[in-house]
Amino acid sequence: MGKKAKQAERILRTASDKDKETALLKIADALIARTGEILEANEKDRKAAVENGMSESLLDRLLLTEDRIKDMADGVKAVSNWPDPVGKVIEEYDRPNGMHLKKVSVPIGVIGVIFEARPNVTSDCAALCIRAGNTVILRGGKEAFNSNNAITNVMRDALAESALPEDCVQLVQDIDRKTAREMMNLTEYLDVLIPRGGSGLIRTVVENAQVPVIETGAGNCHVYVDKDADIDMAANIIFNAKTQRPSVCNAAEKLLIHKDIADKALPAIAEKLSEKAVELRGDEAARAIDSDMKAAQDEDWSTEYGELIMGVKIVDSVEEAIDHIEHYSTHHSDCIITNDAAAAEKFIAGIDSAAVYHNVSTRFTDGGEFGLGAEIGISTQKLHARGPMGVNQLVTHKYVITGTGQVR
Amino acid sequence: MGKKAKQAERILRTASDKDKETALLKIADALIARTGEILEANEKDRKAAVENGMSESLLDRLLLTEDRIKDMADGVKAVSNWPDPVGKVIEEYDRPNGMHLKKVSVPIGVIGVIFEARPNVTSDCAALCIRAGNTVILRGGKEAFNSNNAITNVMRDALAESALPEDCVQLVQDIDRKTAREMMNLTEYLDVLIPRGGSGLIRTVVENAQVPVIETGAGNCHVYVDKDADIDMAANIIFNAKTQRPSVCNAAEKLLIHKDIADKALPAIAEKLSEKAVELRGDEAARAIDSDMKAAQDEDWSTEYGELIMGVKIVDSVEEAIDHIEHYSTHHSDCIITNDAAAAEKFIAGIDSAAVYHNVSTRFTDGGEFGLGAEIGISTQKLHARGPMGVNQLVTHKYVITGTGQVR
Repeated sequence: MGKKAKQAERILRTASDKDKETALLKIADALIARTGEILEANEKDRKAAVENGMSESLLDRLLLTEDRIKDMADGVKAVSNWPDPVGKVIEEYDRPNGMHLKKVSVPIGVIGVIFEARPNVTSDCAALCIRAGNTVILRGGKEAFNSNNAITNVMRDALAESALPEDCVQLVQDIDRKTAREMMNLTEYLDVLIPRGGSGLIRTVVENAQVPVIETGAGNCHVYVDKDADIDMAANIIFNAKTQRPSVCNAAEKLLIHKDIADKALPAIAEKLSEKAVELRGDEAARAIDSDMKAAQDEDWSTEYGELIMGVKIVDSVEEAIDHIEHYSTHHSDCIITNDAAAAEKFIAGIDSAAVYHNVSTRFTDGGEFGLGAEIGISTQKLHARGPMGVNQLVTHKYVITGTGQVR
Repeated sequence: MGKKAKQAERILRTASDKDKETALLKIADALIARTGEILEANEKDRKAAVENGMSESLLDRLLLTEDRIKDMADGVKAVSNWPDPVGKVIEEYDRPNGMHLKKVSVPIGVIGVIFEARPNVTSDCAALCIRAGNTVILRGGKEAFNSNNAITNVMRDALAESALPEDCVQLVQDIDRKTAREMMNLTEYLDVLIPRGGSGLIRTVVENAQVPVIETGAGNCHVYVDKDADIDMAANIIFNAKTQRPSVCNAAEKLLIHKDIADKALPAIAEKLSEKAVELRGDEAARAIDSDMKAAQDEDWSTEYGELIMGVKIVDSVEEAIDHIEHYSTHHSDCIITNDAAAAEKFIAGIDSAAVYHNVSTRFTDGGEFGLGAEIGISTQKLHARGPMGVNQLVTHKYVITGTGQVR
């Protein structure tokens, strides 16, 4: 698979904007035209999953419907419209010896994606990779194998009828630990590995991969309510950041409140959060204000709950808030709510996260919301791309040096 | 050390351009002022190395002299003059909901460097890291420990008298396997790890590190002489690329020649290379032209010699040259020599290396030669930085989002 991916990549690398766009549109059409086949495969997966006692929420993630397949096709179409990120001249200059340097954007090469649960990841990732000139080797979860395989076959058939090779997209067929390990160490063929899924998967990949990894997803996100915050705005933002979609990585998990505003702000925020029955876990000072609250344990401060639970801490100053966040944050998205420009500036400079917010919900850390198009993941590491990784982040560069016989 | 580096980084992160410049100038001055002390420590290392039977070439790498320390100080001064890469607004725009996005360059954080032999790496790396707002944990080789430690102490004392914390630079004191492994897995404190040294060191780090690694250095570089090449130019470029400094990663290791020009070109190039007694190892076709040549073995094509040896292969076309290079190259620096613009274009598009040359020696792949200033290494991987990594490549970015209570 690695060899095939590299061979296909050598063709895809120099494919025209139009060829890539046309191939993606063919894929989108084929997903619609062959919906029945995909639903049939999905039904097989669902039956097996029900027999194995899969939880309702996981079953829902696994489920494909006509509408969901239409969404997948629309997603591929949207990516096809994205401007080609390949072949852009990033810098161009002459050196004193007369040689001419050009730094040009080029595809990364072969991208490996290891993912869980949702079958739509198959077409999302393939489209993003192809748009940026990369071939992709996908490895989905066992429970969605039939669905992923049907989607992959549809895409490969569509590619075979385009100017691009079908091996632009491949799906690992043996879903066991051995193939995962092999993929993590396929340094000869894979240029980068992107894990998409829960923290367990991401940790396993980071710990075991020799292939360079883009770490995505972990989000222990904080909202700090400063003493000069607008309490209504704070309650609205926190309600949105915590409850709009609690399972995602940009959902808020911790609430810090300045002591001078806590007496008023905490009851107002707690009342708003009670609309969705959010469980609050507070430190001593927070519980002195709201005695209904459970006591937070040490491990709460570093936990990404992913559900309707929120840790609450009262702090003495913006500096204490920054110290706490720098200690416990996963450096994904953290927010200050304040009308004090100096406090906001201090917070923005002091917080080393992919996204730092001032008076905006953390839920916006997303390729679409940032205007970067669809995303392959949200990077929480500092190399290459940080924050949402869209098509434009799936390229690298090379230097092209031309001259007339220059020697050193 | 990790904790201290993180603490220092929180101060260094927001240090002014001036503070960083001044601190580096103090370091440069201190290196000169305390030359005696550094030479004394170096003498200790050299004595031990002689007793242990270290080779002459390694002894030379280890040696410090007054001149070499002056070069180190000059290097630090040059880096101090480099424009601050931190705090640059890379992109800035409003979204339809009124929130304002700013993508700003920020330091990477804490950088680990594992290196071998040359003690000057200590001050080079420290200066580059500090200039870009990063703290650094250095781990040099055992044989240069006293030298590295003396240089580090001088730098830390100079930092203590500046606005920056002395823990901006730390040197690992216990040089054994255990500390190396610990460093490779210090994910909580290290943001990136850069190995500088031979391929053995780099492989060990890539295979064992959980911390993201910038892979540097391996260079099996090719020069392809096309049928429309200027033979004199070819001989000059190849002579320079092979012999000017054969041990470095951008030196040429392989020579490919188009069959239509081989009869004339190979003898001319071989004669030029004989001035430095370069040993040629050819395929059958090359040996049919020059029967003095040793026969190349399979492993020759993938070997980075690092000495005055060169593999020679005759190819039928530019396409065959591209295929061969794509198969065997380490994707560092590869060159075509031709007066045919179409062949050059094909080669440049087909070769996926950090630097692709047309009629220029591969020896120019270097931060200074590219006009990027001093370099911490030459990246041969595709993530983050590819090619020479200077001060401007030692930063990442964060998104700062400001608004008026936007929720999703």
